[in-house]
This record gives sequence, C-alpha cells and structure tokens, in this order.
Amino acid sequence: MASVFGGVEGGGTHSKVVLVAADGKILAETEGPSTNHWPKQMPRNFKNVCVCVQLVGVDKCIEVINDMVQRAKVEAGLDPNTPLCSLGMSLSGGEQKDAIDKLISQMKERFPTLSQHYFITTDAIGAIATASDHGGVVLISGTGSNCKLLNPDGSQIGCGGWGHMMGDEGSAFWIAHSAVKTVFDARDNLVAPPHDVTRVTKAMEEYFQVSDLMGMLPHLYRNFQKSHFAGFCKKLAEGAVAGDALCRYVFTQAGRVLAKHVEAVLPAAQEPLLSSDLGLPILCEGSVWKSWELLKPGFTEVLDKVASSDKFKGRFRGYSLLILQQSSALGGASLGARSMGATITMDYTANVDIFYRHTFNSSQ
Amino acid sequence: MASVFGGVEGGGTHSKVVLVAADGKILAETEGPSTNHWPKQMPRNFKNVCVCVQLVGVDKCIEVINDMVQRAKVEAGLDPNTPLCSLGMSLSGGEQKDAIDKLISQMKERFPTLSQHYFITTDAIGAIATASDHGGVVLISGTGSNCKLLNPDGSQIGCGGWGHMMGDEGSAFWIAHSAVKTVFDARDNLVAPPHDVTRVTKAMEEYFQVSDLMGMLPHLYRNFQKSHFAGFCKKLAEGAVAGDALCRYVFTQAGRVLAKHVEAVLPAAQEPLLSSDLGLPILCEGSVWKSWELLKPGFTEVLDKVASSDKFKGRFRGYSLLILQQSSALGGASLGARSMGATITMDYTANVDIFYRHTFNSSQ
Repeated sequence: MASVFGGVEGGGTHSKVVLVAADGKILAETEGPSTNHWPKQMPRNFKNVCVCVQLVGVDKCIEVINDMVQRAKVEAGLDPNTPLCSLGMSLSGGEQKDAIDKLISQMKERFPTLSQHYFITTDAIGAIATASDHGGVVLISGTGSNCKLLNPDGSQIGCGGWGHMMGDEGSAFWIAHSAVKTVFDARDNLVAPPHDVTRVTKAMEEYFQVSDLMGMLPHLYRNFQKSHFAGFCKKLAEGAVAGDALCRYVFTQAGRVLAKHVEAVLPAAQEPLLSSDLGLPILCEGSVWKSWELLKPGFTEVLDKVASSDKFKGRFRGYSLLILQQSSALGGASLGARSMGATITMDYTANVDIFYRHTFNSSQ
Repeated sequence: MASVFGGVEGGGTHSKVVLVAADGKILAETEGPSTNHWPKQMPRNFKNVCVCVQLVGVDKCIEVINDMVQRAKVEAGLDPNTPLCSLGMSLSGGEQKDAIDKLISQMKERFPTLSQHYFITTDAIGAIATASDHGGVVLISGTGSNCKLLNPDGSQIGCGGWGHMMGDEGSAFWIAHSAVKTVFDARDNLVAPPHDVTRVTKAMEEYFQVSDLMGMLPHLYRNFQKSHFAGFCKKLAEGAVAGDALCRYVFTQAGRVLAKHVEAVLPAAQEPLLSSDLGLPILCEGSVWKSWELLKPGFTEVLDKVASSDKFKGRFRGYSLLILQQSSALGGASLGARSMGATITMDYTANVDIFYRHTFNSSQ
C-alpha cells in the first residue's frame, strides 16, 4: 500500500479521515466524533492536541483516529493490516511539539499497522495546504475568530485566536456581544447607540427568553455557554438582511475587524503570496462567512485603505476570498506525503470556491 | 430599647452591624462574615439578597445577621431579648422585592426579639444615606464598577454594574484587562499600542507567572478568577506612579470612563443635588480610588466637557468627591429609623472626607 496516503481533520465538533492515492484520487472518506473534547468556550489557540493528552487521554484520542482510518481502509477495499504510506493530521493546536511527539510515539506503538509515517500540523496549515501549495491566509470566523498567514517557505504568523475574554473580534460571539453591549450601553445612557436599538432589543429578549437586562446576567455568567451566546449572531444576520440599521452596523464592524486581522499579518507576506493571479488568497472558514454580503462593506473598506497606504501601495494588488470544497484532511494528507518525500497530485482549483475577488486600481 | 436603631452593611467580603442612638451616638459595632456567598466574579447587579434565598439559604443569611446584631446588643450593654426599634439593612441587590419580603418575614418569625421593624435597601443607597440626607451619586470602582444617582425625592437611576462580561468599565478588572489586551494586540500587530508595552508586558509576566501570551490563557479561562485578574491593577498603579506611559494611560482612560458614568446619570439629577455648596456630591467607593491622582486627568477632562456642554452649561456648576469615614450600616440604620417615622441625628460632615472639589468657571 505504498501509494496510499491518509489525512485527518481533527476539529472541535467532528473529525474526518480521507485516504488518497498519489494521483490525487480520493479512495475513501470517513467521519468520526470530535478529537477535541476541550470545552467549546476555550479559545482556538488553546484547543490543542494537549487536550488528547491531558483531558481525553492520548488513548481515547488515538483510538478515534485509528478507528476512522481502519474503517476508511475497508471502505476503500484495502487490507486494514497493511499500513498507510503516511498519515498527515491537521489538528487544532497541532503546533504543541511535546504533545505531538507523544501522540505519534503512542500511535506507532499501539497501532503498528496503521501507518508507516506520521505528520501533525495545525488546522489552519492543513486548510491552506488543501487550497494551495504555496501558502496563503486562513481567516476563521465561526464561534470564535483567528487568522494565520503561511508563506511559501513555510514560515507563518498569526493574529487573534485568543478567545472571547481577549478578543475573538469579528466572530459570531463578538457580533452577538457587540449587539447586546450596544443595548446595555443605550439603556444605561453610557454610550449613544449608532442606530435605534428597538429591533436588536426585541430579538435579544426573544432569543435569550428574557424580559429585561437583568435577565441577561445568567446567560453571561452562571449559565454562560459561548456557543449559545454566539448563536444570537444568526438572529442579527436575519435582522440585517431585513434592513435593520444596527444589525447591519455590527456586521460592517465585524467585516472591518476581520480585515484588520489580514492587515496585521500582511507585513509578513512574502512576495509570491501577493503576486499570484488571485492576489492574496484568503481562505475563509466558519459560519459567519455565510453573511459575507453583510461583512463586505467594512471588510473591503479596510483593505482598500491598506492597499493605498504608503506601506503597501503597489505591493498589495488584490485578494481573493476562498472557501474550501474539501476537508482539510486532504491538505493534511498532502503535507504528510510531502514530509516523507512523496507527492500527492492536488487539483487545487477543484478544492476551493472563489466567492469574491478584488483587484485594486493600479492608480492607487 | 425604643431609642436604639440597628444598621447592617452586607457586602461581598464582610458584613457589619452598628447600633446607634437617636442622637447619632454609635453604641456598638460588630463584624461578621459575608452575607453574600455568590462567587466573586458575579456582577454587582446580580449580587443580591436572592443569593441568601437561592444559594446560601435564607436560614444561613439571617442567622449571620441575627448573630451580629445580638453580639452588638451585648457589646452595647443592652438586653439581647429586647428588640431594636428598627433594623435597616444596606445589602447589595437590596432592590429585589420578593427576596426582601421573604428575608424580612423569616427574620420576624425566627428571631422575634431581634427588632420591631425592618427595612432593606441597596448598598449604594445605604452608602449615600451615610453621607447625606438629600441624595447624591455613588461611584464604585473596586474589582467591578457601578454608578447610582439618588435624588432628594428618593428616585434613583443607575449606570453599569453588569460585571466583566458586559462592562465594569473603569474598575480594577477593566484596568488590568485593558493593559493585558494592549499587550496582546501589540504582539498580534492588530492595534498599535498608544505607548511602549515593555514595562506592562514584564509586569504581566511577573504577576501572572507566565513567559508568553499562551501562558495567559489559563488565567483567562480554566482558572479564571476575577479578583486575582483585577489584582494586576495594583501593579499597573505602581508602574504609573513610577512614570510608565502606558500604565498612566490606562488609568487616565479609567478616569474618563468613570466620569462617563456620572455623565450618564446626570440628566436625571434634580436641581437641589446640583446646587448644594459641594456641587454634585460623588461618593467614591472601592480600592481604585486610592489611585485618584492617576484617574484625575481623564476624570476631570470628561466632566469639564460636560459642564461646558449646551445641555449642562450653568446647571452643572461643580462636584465633590467624597469617601465614607463610616460603614454604610449607619446609613442603613438612618433609613430604617426613617421608614418608621423616627429620626437619627446624623453628623454627615463627620461621616465623609472630601478628597477633591471642583468648581467650574462661571464663564463656562
């Protein structure tokens, strides 16, 4: 089975395995439970493979992975007792060297027929490797937010990912919180709201099933659940689509701050990343991107300014927003193969959908 | 014992009882444990007498109060079996009518010799009643922050008090968080810091015993303790006193936003509150006021602007910052006496220290 490569996407809510041939053909795909049992309110930078070691236990974690891979082998009509050529795992927090080493050594020991070689990287790097072989930016806005830039030479830099207590700007939680905070501040006469708060107040009372601000406190403290709080973002998106000015405003602000994450990592971008036909490729992950039309005014405004700034004039010529059409397990498989000197032929254009493209005016 | 009145201050960290005669003479003072066992990270608006009912149980709560009062009677040389004339309790969250009614009815039933009459009010109102008989503003900046304005006619309005998830602006937690966030944003290149972050970063690493930003995450999530996080404010105050520009900046910002709380409640102030010799009396509570000199630039700047605004020109002529020299149990006793038609002679000037006075230029 020298020519079969495996990839794992280990996420907060689900896990995925792909088996792929050297020519890029996907032989099997299986899904499994989360490999990451860290509570959801933890920031992305802290969701890591250490979780396996510390909380779930390395045993449980590698059993889940082994089970998915072995099922995939059977699905592909392969002998489960023949090891894969390599297994590339794209895991949130996959930069924690000690935890990675422990995970790999235990997998080798417990499951000798699983794979010959192992490789672990972060979810962001796995995602970029699914979309491109020369790097890019991944910009996550789901419950939380995060941004990573990966250069063609493999160097990387990040911005955000610290969770709701220290940022998560532009995420669903942040959007929900901004709207609720605007209601509190208006009621307190502490900050004048940028727009009428009537609709947002009503939506808040409905979503959280409260009749006054005091009723919000259990949702913020005793019974706080980040994902539930962030779920209010969806109601705000509905309000924005229906034309409510405050709902539209918070999404515009989210677009602004998400673009600021790109601005933050941009100085580290190597030339080839900026000079491709697509301009800077920005891989967008997370459910908030479903509301791209709402984010767009703020997002494009900030990047327009960046492009015309002295620092980036003529250098930052455009960007594309991409969304993955394949699991980042595929990128993991590709990186895993490469780590042992093999190559999987990747059809990158089929792996992504370009949902927005912007070229800055050359006179800028 | 018709002429002996009791007062209770029930706070988050300790409780206090005073017994006072109609002429204002303090007959005894006793201390007890917290009547409020709600976890410290709860916002002030939620620290309430319901806690007694829901968590500690009404039984435990009224036992603590009874025990303190009975000890005070003995200390004052009084017969513990003779009820006080009235017992006025100043409790955080003392506006929750259902909880109040339950507390009082159970006290009457279980401890018939404790007091003839009962009265419960909030900690803010009890504090103001200790300082004045015609209202004022209480502006709290301790671990959390909060602002209340009490009018001469008893009407009141508040701003803030929602806890660290929805504000606490200008509090020790907020100051500590602002400084830490500035370090994170600078490191991420997300927001340029207003001043060099070197000293604050070093102080953060020392106080939280971490070597990088990742190390801060347990302090923000898994092991989050609001009071410990807020304790970093003290280190920032030391940095500010030593001249560090960023430390000074965060305190100036705190001063600004605390003054904005006063601005928020000011439109509700009745004329007598603004026209006294002291100007608007602002009762300052909480440990952050120890750093008044650091708050001052931002605080005075905001109120100067308010005073010269069209809305308040000529009406808001000055203000005084006061600090209590007596427990707000005394104010509670006074209000308790008044609620049954009696009067305690209060020497208000002895109960407060005026630590700052500002009169706006009449040409403003």
